[in-house]
Amino acid sequence: MQAGKPILYSYFRSSCSWRVRIALALKGIDYDIVPINLVKDGGQQYSKEFETLNPMKQVPTLKIDGITITQSLAIIEYLEETRPTAPRLLPLDPKERASVRMISDLIASGIQPLQNLSILKKVGQETQLAWAQAVISSGFKALESVLQSTAGKYCLGNEISMADLCLVPQVANAERYKVDLSPYPTITRIYKTLLTVEAFQVSHPSRQPDTPPELRA
Amino acid sequence: MQAGKPILYSYFRSSCSWRVRIALALKGIDYDIVPINLVKDGGQQYSKEFETLNPMKQVPTLKIDGITITQSLAIIEYLEETRPTAPRLLPLDPKERASVRMISDLIASGIQPLQNLSILKKVGQETQLAWAQAVISSGFKALESVLQSTAGKYCLGNEISMADLCLVPQVANAERYKVDLSPYPTITRIYKTLLTVEAFQVSHPSRQPDTPPELRA
Repeated sequence: MQAGKPILYSYFRSSCSWRVRIALALKGIDYDIVPINLVKDGGQQYSKEFETLNPMKQVPTLKIDGITITQSLAIIEYLEETRPTAPRLLPLDPKERASVRMISDLIASGIQPLQNLSILKKVGQETQLAWAQAVISSGFKALESVLQSTAGKYCLGNEISMADLCLVPQVANAERYKVDLSPYPTITRIYKTLLTVEAFQVSHPSRQPDTPPELRA
Repeated sequence: MQAGKPILYSYFRSSCSWRVRIALALKGIDYDIVPINLVKDGGQQYSKEFETLNPMKQVPTLKIDGITITQSLAIIEYLEETRPTAPRLLPLDPKERASVRMISDLIASGIQPLQNLSILKKVGQETQLAWAQAVISSGFKALESVLQSTAGKYCLGNEISMADLCLVPQVANAERYKVDLSPYPTITRIYKTLLTVEAFQVSHPSRQPDTPPELRA
């Protein structure tokens, strides 16, 4: 590993890791990946070594510029503030920034945490699929309504923003949990459009160093 | 209600509403409160009228400067960007800003959503207290570890920041759910210090227009 190159601790299937991988790809930041397998060995995030790096025992975790940052949106905001060159991940207008953060937080606080791996484990194997479907559907109903007034080609107008970095991995989770997406035409349209963008493709769970062969694109 | 005055849709006991009430108090912003009772009438947040305002059917929701913002951290970031005068809620240094956002998101995405009212309802009455205690304790273990390297008088050094606005309401929730706080001396110390600050006192759940008489300070 080259000294000074950012290191992303990531799991191919982690939707929060994917958010950060998209940001790094959009900004053209070269980085190394250290895969943390969230299921193997009872979960590699629970190792003492990793806990020292991130006491929450979660990915993503980014080492960059001499510091370690956890929490995907905090990482993305840091990348934006220190590498503001195009493409911007947040618009310049404060009201538009509020919209981007509102959509991002709706997903990052309002949907994802309720269907992540550790919660589904707590819920129990029998009911976890129904649980995941219920929380995602409920969140998507709200998100669809919000996007109908903010969206252009993307979540906010016609520029890719942090909100899109949250949307795509969340829709991928919805597909994985077999959520019926037909009631959410705006979400689905933006998702499909974004999957054609290179930064979303190279960062895709099917194309990571730790993607198992049977799931590779 | 005076035209142009911000309107906060709030519930006295909502920890996310409290975050925003602290921000408004610190910034000295005069506002009106419209109470949304999350339990009465099956939950006033589920009314058609409120759903139009916030499709997530959650408080806080803030009407300000001609727009409606939901999601507490998006609201606080907007207040900071449009009213940056002292006290700042985020430091100027990007690395310090990353720390503040990391701590804020640890609470706002990593703890609070897992113990909010609608999730506890889903979990069921018999196990909800144990569930809330488990998710808060697990999050506080990580938070205590993070704060041991960031804290001064407050969460980050000696200036109040957005992280403190998240910490105090979360500790109040922990107390409500009878979480043993003895393993978290840094969290507890900062909490007690902040409770002596006027902006945290006037915004306290025990002093809101919708606080029931028996819970009033």
